Amino acid sequence: MTDDPRFGLARHVTLPGPLALDGGGRLSPVEIAYETYGTLDAGGTNAILVCHALTGDQHVASAHPKTGKPGWWTRMVGAGKPIDPARHFIVCANVLGSCLGSSRPASTDPATGRPYGMSFPVITVRDMVRAQAMLLDHLGVAVLEAVVGGSMGGMQALEWAATFHDRVRAAIVIASAARHSAQNIAFHEVGRQAIMADPNWRGGAYYGAGDPPSAGLAVARMAAHITYLSEAGLTEKFGRRLQDRGAKGFGFDADFQVESYLRHQGISFTDRFDANSYLYITRALDYFDLAEEHGGLLANAFRGSATRFCVVSFDTDWLYPTAESRTIVHALNAAGAQVSFVELSSPFGHDAFLLDVPELNQVVDGFIRAGEA
Amino acid sequence: MTDDPRFGLARHVTLPGPLALDGGGRLSPVEIAYETYGTLDAGGTNAILVCHALTGDQHVASAHPKTGKPGWWTRMVGAGKPIDPARHFIVCANVLGSCLGSSRPASTDPATGRPYGMSFPVITVRDMVRAQAMLLDHLGVAVLEAVVGGSMGGMQALEWAATFHDRVRAAIVIASAARHSAQNIAFHEVGRQAIMADPNWRGGAYYGAGDPPSAGLAVARMAAHITYLSEAGLTEKFGRRLQDRGAKGFGFDADFQVESYLRHQGISFTDRFDANSYLYITRALDYFDLAEEHGGLLANAFRGSATRFCVVSFDTDWLYPTAESRTIVHALNAAGAQVSFVELSSPFGHDAFLLDVPELNQVVDGFIRAGEA
Repeated sequence: MTDDPRFGLARHVTLPGPLALDGGGRLSPVEIAYETYGTLDAGGTNAILVCHALTGDQHVASAHPKTGKPGWWTRMVGAGKPIDPARHFIVCANVLGSCLGSSRPASTDPATGRPYGMSFPVITVRDMVRAQAMLLDHLGVAVLEAVVGGSMGGMQALEWAATFHDRVRAAIVIASAARHSAQNIAFHEVGRQAIMADPNWRGGAYYGAGDPPSAGLAVARMAAHITYLSEAGLTEKFGRRLQDRGAKGFGFDADFQVESYLRHQGISFTDRFDANSYLYITRALDYFDLAEEHGGLLANAFRGSATRFCVVSFDTDWLYPTAESRTIVHALNAAGAQVSFVELSSPFGHDAFLLDVPELNQVVDGFIRAGEA
Repeated sequence: MTDDPRFGLARHVTLPGPLALDGGGRLSPVEIAYETYGTLDAGGTNAILVCHALTGDQHVASAHPKTGKPGWWTRMVGAGKPIDPARHFIVCANVLGSCLGSSRPASTDPATGRPYGMSFPVITVRDMVRAQAMLLDHLGVAVLEAVVGGSMGGMQALEWAATFHDRVRAAIVIASAARHSAQNIAFHEVGRQAIMADPNWRGGAYYGAGDPPSAGLAVARMAAHITYLSEAGLTEKFGRRLQDRGAKGFGFDADFQVESYLRHQGISFTDRFDANSYLYITRALDYFDLAEEHGGLLANAFRGSATRFCVVSFDTDWLYPTAESRTIVHALNAAGAQVSFVELSSPFGHDAFLLDVPELNQVVDGFIRAGEA
């Protein structure tokens, strides 16, 4: 299997599709950039799909091609970690619409031979998941031992369990929600308006011109980044400390460390992310409402499911607070599904799922191993 | 007194100054736009200074000159209200840096004969208060029966009590804080970067060109506006309801009511506010740290004060949460000051101080009347 070009790091496949989209269109071809780690066992029982968050990618445990930084979830995925290539066949795919190689606004529209831009179809979380299912078909994975993700990754895990009952033995949903709240939508709308207000955006037709709407994208990232952190965490990390100066400058430079940090977050983000992709993925998130997809009752999404669920929230996460996880758990209970739920304590806010929270690893490890016993 | 041109609506005075600023500069002349309601009694005992919030103005109970809307605090100020022109001499002044007539970035710099733009000096909340004290001198008001304000207005009320012990018999501090937190600064920095990223901003030198940085200012307002509302309030008001359509549009128009609402908030704001003023006032707020002004110990700001304090917070306010009010109350207790404190319940988040919360009126009315007994 190691010689099989389908497996390994930095893979890319172009599937013919067409993929029927929730919005009514059809996407063809369907490009998927992905990575696999470990080996699928003979029974095909050890596959784990890792789903990434809004600005994440397929490099879950390998260096990012643009930034050179380690994979975004090496705390969870790797030798000796809960998701371990020695035991698991791990798949992580760049979601539809994202900018690391899967079908996206920057892709060539076969109808015109030019980048889609804003003629790329609006996609949903369910569309992302359907594309992942096509990838698993391509890889020969019939059933997942587990699907796991935090934030938007958790939404995909929920959507997997709801859409492909028979292909998911376990779903791990971390710091996530079954629908985007009005406040979630509002923050995303600020980001989108910041991008669209940038004259360089040009209605999305900026590819190839060398001057993408970086200023707008940086502002969008700054606004979003605040929602990923807790107020207490920001206070602990920065408080009102000044940046490289002994006194306030009485000007508009970054006087405070938190300003300097945010500016850096905004600017560095533009080196690795595409503004149109940001528009499309935030839209997919805002559209996400698993109950709505199932007659308005969330429990219907899980009725008759044999999937085991693990739901984890963080006490300082105000983007997808614990109440959102409780809503999921109540629906799972109502549907008679197996579910374990824990709220973990962390100072890190929403970003806790990416950071050093040993209890999270214990929970995920225990839950996965329970399914292997 | 009614013939005295100093009193009434839509007043404006140019004082020679100079006003020595915290940032080291001197402002001269000092323009102050203000309004007065009611009549100062013979003993000069019934003056109440109302301080406005970030985007507020002097039109506390009169129609806004640009929007035509009623004054921003007619629930609190007016006939039969807690602050009543029949009983009180009410003063409300546009803060320094704001855009409704007081000295501001759009004012003419006497050194150049052209608008200051970004050469306007960075001002502080204490500078605002010092300018108000100059106005009270001009109006012949020696001592305030009360100074009252919500949000940034509450900061001014605190600053008044701290800076002019002998001129303030009572201070009412609503939905406010004694310092700006890292998260507060972060949200303001997003707004400033949105403005500065707008090419029309031109380093602040956009006056007279007819194309101010409205797009950037609208994004800044949208981001800030989210912080003024509670998550629960947004859910109750908008939830995931669609705007004038039966189904999702699978595009980037404002599908959701909350998007449409936010866009409207952003755009309409640009009709009444100046982008540079927004930069300067947010900066003043971020610099606000009353403890820092008093040797790092907040209680020192109130040591020996005979002022009566009333501190009010709202349970759903996450911009200046109740914990910030408690910090103020603890400092007042430590300083031996008289203080009454209440956390009110409201679904409206930070904006509750401007909205229909009958308990707030009862608290303010009772507190003011107690001082008149």
